[in-house]
Amino acid sequence: MTLHIGILVFPNVQQLDLTGPYEVFASIADAKVHLIWKDRTAITSATGLVLTPTVTFAECPALDVVCVPGGAGINALLQDAEVLGFLRAQAARARYVTSVCTGSLVLGAAGLLKGRRATTHWASHDFLAKFGAIPTPGRVVRDGNLFTAGGVTAGIDFSLTLVAELLGEAQAQAIQLSLEYAPEPPFRAGTPETAPPGVVAVAKERLASRQQAREAIIDEIVAAGLAKAS
Amino acid sequence: MTLHIGILVFPNVQQLDLTGPYEVFASIADAKVHLIWKDRTAITSATGLVLTPTVTFAECPALDVVCVPGGAGINALLQDAEVLGFLRAQAARARYVTSVCTGSLVLGAAGLLKGRRATTHWASHDFLAKFGAIPTPGRVVRDGNLFTAGGVTAGIDFSLTLVAELLGEAQAQAIQLSLEYAPEPPFRAGTPETAPPGVVAVAKERLASRQQAREAIIDEIVAAGLAKAS
Repeated sequence: MTLHIGILVFPNVQQLDLTGPYEVFASIADAKVHLIWKDRTAITSATGLVLTPTVTFAECPALDVVCVPGGAGINALLQDAEVLGFLRAQAARARYVTSVCTGSLVLGAAGLLKGRRATTHWASHDFLAKFGAIPTPGRVVRDGNLFTAGGVTAGIDFSLTLVAELLGEAQAQAIQLSLEYAPEPPFRAGTPETAPPGVVAVAKERLASRQQAREAIIDEIVAAGLAKAS
Repeated sequence: MTLHIGILVFPNVQQLDLTGPYEVFASIADAKVHLIWKDRTAITSATGLVLTPTVTFAECPALDVVCVPGGAGINALLQDAEVLGFLRAQAARARYVTSVCTGSLVLGAAGLLKGRRATTHWASHDFLAKFGAIPTPGRVVRDGNLFTAGGVTAGIDFSLTLVAELLGEAQAQAIQLSLEYAPEPPFRAGTPETAPPGVVAVAKERLASRQQAREAIIDEIVAAGLAKAS
């Protein structure tokens, strides 16, 4: 039976949050990967790559896996009743509810993280608790049928982990082999703990204004009663 | 001065070959990443993701970096005089000529690998010598201004390596941190040497007919005189 895997796509999505898992999921022999948005107009991602949705919210079939990627564009989703309603409805029926990077904050805004262990991009980790989640370190964090991944490239590790869960280790290993996923990062700079302190300081400064805007939005929606909305 | 980085996009490209380096390059403060094809019509990648070119061959500015991704679709490029001519002309002026996965075979068909160390996806490694390249193991192989990467996900390691070369280690580390690139593959299955033998056998069998078709094309163009064409 065909697995229906749906990935949300939206303006200013971080495209690698989406395209990494897409490639893993689309490598499954009998899976259909949907890119879902309000309409099927082409969308510009945070770094300029144009992505084209394949189904609208209205057209989207019941999903086995719901996946929400992150990126600068999530700020607008946190207060978007149409998006949050779609996610809640699909999550209620899906086998797995998942996110990559700051996609987990959107799940949080939909009320789907309450009392559950979750992760997100390192720069937004402090926001998880505001949604009632249990902030948990880890590249891929599982709590029951909820899988949340760390920042951007963690989506590859997450999606291979989920394929193993769905179809067994041999299938995940076959996909890992086909994608030659034996990474050799040129530096030990992928986390704030390992990157040179100067590099971390510059990154934090560069992100500061976006993170402040994000925090203000989150505080507003939490104050307005996240519990009621969900 | 803006860096112009051009990535070839084509029908049945392996999208993660392209989207990994795209995300790294597009994270450079002053870079313009171009997706280049014959026209600007939307293109379907090997696993179904739709990508949209940003410039045509005719519109494309002189590139600082030329990058050719791989995928099933490269078979058609190996005999495509328009594509090979475009790559030769850009390569003659570019600071760096690069590829991910089986994109290096296209560089080979353009006559750009002769006498140079290069790599490609593990399943196509044996084809490199047919183009006069020196097949070289390695996730990222450098020979002068030629950088070739291994299969698919090696594009992330390659692009971070090239950013360090172009702009210094701190810039590459900042991008690695922003993409939280501290990979934790769930299995040791990313290469034929580390994957379970049964998984490798199935993968090779599944690829066999495509690889035979590829070899026949390569033998034909080599017999027709790769040297003359280039």
